[in-house]
Amino acid sequence: MPERDIMRSTARGFRRYYNPEIGDELRMDTNTNVLGPNPAAEEYIRGFRGDISGYPNTYSDGLRDALAGLHGLDRENFVAGNGSDEMLDVAFKTFTEWGDGCAVPVPSYTLYDYFVRVNGGRVLEVDLTEDFQLDVDAVLRQKARMTIMPSPNNPTGNTFRQKDIEEILSGSEGMVIVDEAYVEYASGSMISRVNEFDNLIVMRTFSKAYSMAGLRVGYSASNPDVAGMMNCVKIPYSLNKLSEGAAIAAVGDQSFIEASVGVVREQRPRLAEGLRRLGFEPFPSDSNFILAKCPVDHAELVSRLRGKGVLIRDFGSKRRTENCVRITVGTEDLNGIVLGKIEEVVSECRSK
Amino acid sequence: MPERDIMRSTARGFRRYYNPEIGDELRMDTNTNVLGPNPAAEEYIRGFRGDISGYPNTYSDGLRDALAGLHGLDRENFVAGNGSDEMLDVAFKTFTEWGDGCAVPVPSYTLYDYFVRVNGGRVLEVDLTEDFQLDVDAVLRQKARMTIMPSPNNPTGNTFRQKDIEEILSGSEGMVIVDEAYVEYASGSMISRVNEFDNLIVMRTFSKAYSMAGLRVGYSASNPDVAGMMNCVKIPYSLNKLSEGAAIAAVGDQSFIEASVGVVREQRPRLAEGLRRLGFEPFPSDSNFILAKCPVDHAELVSRLRGKGVLIRDFGSKRRTENCVRITVGTEDLNGIVLGKIEEVVSECRSK
Repeated sequence: MPERDIMRSTARGFRRYYNPEIGDELRMDTNTNVLGPNPAAEEYIRGFRGDISGYPNTYSDGLRDALAGLHGLDRENFVAGNGSDEMLDVAFKTFTEWGDGCAVPVPSYTLYDYFVRVNGGRVLEVDLTEDFQLDVDAVLRQKARMTIMPSPNNPTGNTFRQKDIEEILSGSEGMVIVDEAYVEYASGSMISRVNEFDNLIVMRTFSKAYSMAGLRVGYSASNPDVAGMMNCVKIPYSLNKLSEGAAIAAVGDQSFIEASVGVVREQRPRLAEGLRRLGFEPFPSDSNFILAKCPVDHAELVSRLRGKGVLIRDFGSKRRTENCVRITVGTEDLNGIVLGKIEEVVSECRSK
Repeated sequence: MPERDIMRSTARGFRRYYNPEIGDELRMDTNTNVLGPNPAAEEYIRGFRGDISGYPNTYSDGLRDALAGLHGLDRENFVAGNGSDEMLDVAFKTFTEWGDGCAVPVPSYTLYDYFVRVNGGRVLEVDLTEDFQLDVDAVLRQKARMTIMPSPNNPTGNTFRQKDIEEILSGSEGMVIVDEAYVEYASGSMISRVNEFDNLIVMRTFSKAYSMAGLRVGYSASNPDVAGMMNCVKIPYSLNKLSEGAAIAAVGDQSFIEASVGVVREQRPRLAEGLRRLGFEPFPSDSNFILAKCPVDHAELVSRLRGKGVLIRDFGSKRRTENCVRITVGTEDLNGIVLGKIEEVVSECRSK
């Protein structure tokens, strides 16, 4: 029986990713769009009469052109592919050597650690400050070959200060990835600055506000030289024809994005208030989810809530998010259901 | 302006992949299925009413179950993902360290070199014998951490001898990938042997006989421990929902695969004979393409043919395939058109 010592040394500790057995639970655990599937993308799929027997365009030129229009940049600023996860992998493959140190804030997206290690790098953990902002000096002291940060941050929900990101860009010799998976819900993006900073790579996804997680589409924006290097490293035609076409259609319908963002901005303070009323301590969020410290044991809360048909994500056993859970902001109705179930669980826990 | 010295040292020489500007040319250059799109996959897409807003199943369990049924294996023998290219990348990421030597036959699939280098490895080129078979001793002498071979081989078209593959599996301490992208057109596969050899990884694709290149679906089969390690390394939910569903549908319709293989087996000798008549020297093929030495200059042939609306693939400047081109086997009608255009070009070249 093959043992794990045949594996790449930096990958031996890997376990499978979050993969709950799903029935018809309410999924408030993945921060997808609660307004439902992207209508323009769905319409594209319904009307699809393309030829699936042939390979897609090698570098997704059609989507890159649409993105150029959306952001006022050029096709060659972009790399497009199979979810922003592929883009992250490509960035590490393009710009890091074996053993290179990569700075990762704590807490932030759980998969960054995986992307660093799977590509042979060393994770340099840098704690965020007490209020979950970047500790600029601590980041720069790492002298990392790659620095990666989500803004808004996941799972804390807050946006990092623009001036802190700029200081890190200016002070770093290595590349800096700003992962803007949730940026539509916030204000302030670095994407308009990609021609200004040689070492800036902005990541974007169609899985959140664009409501197309099932189609796996993501992209990066950077200066054309950096994007050119990444395109040479990326697996050719990694974005399938249907997903590319659906993404182009979705870019053309910004009204759905605006409506989605509108719901989140309206409901976010109400969900926070509801949680506070039940004894939670919610952290400020610029995203479509809220991190909150629980008034009862996190694991019991998540497990009992699941028993009542509601999935939320447990971060309570991790350092810096002790006893915290992450909850997707729903519509008014959804939030009502979720808060009702949470109220039941909290009172069950207290009356034990 | 960022220079290439910021790139991973093993990737600095990369250039973009084959990406011709396409009009309405006949594409006899990519070895896709000339019978047109997979009908079961198309039907699935037309009828799709799934929810694209949610993430796909993390490890494509539905497709892996369908593959288990098809091959008489278990779900846990399989890793499924975004084309067999992703599976190749995952195999190198899982089982090689920086600097590891990886044995690659010459000539074989042009992207192997890329997968080795992008993951920090060293390519150990091992020439095939004069008749394009494996030089078993030369392969084993490399003591490679990873050995990779396509069977049937691309671009030569022939299958490697089963006993040679077995000797390499038994004699290697490292992993051995047998890439069976074109196996449906041949006879003899290693997929039924994955529980017998600890170090065997078989790669399969839906891009050729299954006629779904546009959807990017591939998979590997190996013993469950090896597959388990690869699943931990693979990017979660890398296969999108539509492509997974379409692939499951396609697995259920083996009559299309049989018809596709039937056309190739019938037309392959006719195309070879036609080429021979025009002065080419075709090599024996078990695939849906033929490699042939040209009676005129390869580059001029490919370029003039393109001017007449037919794309074929030029391998004439590479070692071991000097002055050779690779042509996809078409239907009777397609082959007639292609041979007619080639005849025109050959006579133009000769009358210069």
